[in-house]
Amino acid sequence: MKVAVLTGGVGGAKFVLGLERCGLVDELVAIVNTGDDFRHLGLTISPDIDTLLYTLSGKANAAQGWGREGESWSFLEALRSLGGPDWFRLGDGDLALHVLRSDMLAQGESLSAITAGFAARWGIATKVLPMSDDPVATHLDTDEGPLEFQRYFVERQCKPAVSAVRFAGAETARAAPGVCEAILSADAVFLAPSNPYLSIDPILAVAEIARALKETKAPMIAISPIVGGTAVKGPTAKLMAELGVAPDNAAIAAHYAPLLDAMLHDDSDPPPPGLPASATATLMQNLDDRIRVARAAITLAERLRAA
Amino acid sequence: MKVAVLTGGVGGAKFVLGLERCGLVDELVAIVNTGDDFRHLGLTISPDIDTLLYTLSGKANAAQGWGREGESWSFLEALRSLGGPDWFRLGDGDLALHVLRSDMLAQGESLSAITAGFAARWGIATKVLPMSDDPVATHLDTDEGPLEFQRYFVERQCKPAVSAVRFAGAETARAAPGVCEAILSADAVFLAPSNPYLSIDPILAVAEIARALKETKAPMIAISPIVGGTAVKGPTAKLMAELGVAPDNAAIAAHYAPLLDAMLHDDSDPPPPGLPASATATLMQNLDDRIRVARAAITLAERLRAA
Repeated sequence: MKVAVLTGGVGGAKFVLGLERCGLVDELVAIVNTGDDFRHLGLTISPDIDTLLYTLSGKANAAQGWGREGESWSFLEALRSLGGPDWFRLGDGDLALHVLRSDMLAQGESLSAITAGFAARWGIATKVLPMSDDPVATHLDTDEGPLEFQRYFVERQCKPAVSAVRFAGAETARAAPGVCEAILSADAVFLAPSNPYLSIDPILAVAEIARALKETKAPMIAISPIVGGTAVKGPTAKLMAELGVAPDNAAIAAHYAPLLDAMLHDDSDPPPPGLPASATATLMQNLDDRIRVARAAITLAERLRAA
Repeated sequence: MKVAVLTGGVGGAKFVLGLERCGLVDELVAIVNTGDDFRHLGLTISPDIDTLLYTLSGKANAAQGWGREGESWSFLEALRSLGGPDWFRLGDGDLALHVLRSDMLAQGESLSAITAGFAARWGIATKVLPMSDDPVATHLDTDEGPLEFQRYFVERQCKPAVSAVRFAGAETARAAPGVCEAILSADAVFLAPSNPYLSIDPILAVAEIARALKETKAPMIAISPIVGGTAVKGPTAKLMAELGVAPDNAAIAAHYAPLLDAMLHDDSDPPPPGLPASATATLMQNLDDRIRVARAAITLAERLRAA
């Protein structure tokens, strides 16, 4: 089975790792949100790509939920002593990706080529593709005014109430090389259990990608981020409430309609009405969990293909 | 006594620290070589300025002779794992200066304003001025072809034989704000015991600075880098041999003529002929040494002023 998966940060990366490790996938292509990417201290930072690279190469800090295992913080400490901005916590090892990527981008290399190079260096089997080589920036309208994603997410810790989410540049951004091909040739397209509004929507907002998803014969299956009537992590549930949506699978399904063909959801929650679905325990606390959720998603895809 | 000191990296920084700590100087202005500055991984690196900032704020790694005390190396390790260039050893804390400086330069701030800000943050009393806010780059003609300074100094470890030293941009570079004023208002101008060819000459190559040195009424006193018929550190003696010059105080005095008024030299070496001079043990292994050498330089300056 050839699989394309649309993914954001931590939760999505866990699911992609499960797909890679469950051994049922011939070709696995991860299409990664770059709406969170931003410039900071002159560096181009791609948090979701890096989280996926760290996760798939065994470098992720599992306890912390972001960044690298065994990270040191001398840079940030020295930066603070110089009065530099310390609201975005840049680890010493993490910085290597940002500095090298920024330099290669400045020399005219594409984000997708750079990402492929990093993944190859770290022995990652999954094809990791940014959704686009063109800049797309997630902006939020909030009760504190408009905020760039990282200002909202990291600096303000998701505290402002969100009234709208916009993806600047998505209208004109091209899909990165290989993205549409992967979707069109896939046997299944998964939407990882990432935040639908902040992590998956930016990918869907790229017109070429939306078109490929409409055209592909592969079933599109969402792994719901809802567990027990709320979201596991991050601002999903809070955001849904602010946008006037109930944090349940019906709302997730409605959000992804009409492209969505099926949903894998947590067994503690009701399924979305009128949509093929299956359930498992979707909380992914360890590698076994990740493999189990990935396997359940693949089984659901096989059921749909056989139907 | 108001003192202006022209200085390069490690040896010069030790002397400036001695001047600061010997308590005989009312105003101390360090005019720092920027000919070693270069772009690496998209960052602007100013090694001599940073060495001075580290030395004057008590952050220098004394045993190693460069960089920060207690430095960590996660960045370099991660960079290496990604196939990035690792010939220039960027420490994690050190990187903060390069990243912040590069970002501030990109935003239109001047190197001198940025340097003053860093020095203020770290509580440094000495006025630390880059020789110029304009780029000046030391290039070497060698038996391996033309080399940029850091390629020669760090990557090739001074192994190539040098036939000429050039300072690209020095013709048109302006002196940084305050540099000429400091020279013109000084009671003494010192040339730190840095490499005359690689660290002091780039400063002298800036036309405005050369003019100010000619105009100033302050005596110009060189602290010789020669100790016991050779140079303490770095490529000075090797370079002098390659340029066909004997590694002695006569050659140093001739090199700085006709501007030079006097020399402080090591008591194990003969004085330069026909020039006022005094001698002390100039090897600076600890703070007491630095203060003693600084005090001897000031005493020599006072002697010249009284004459």
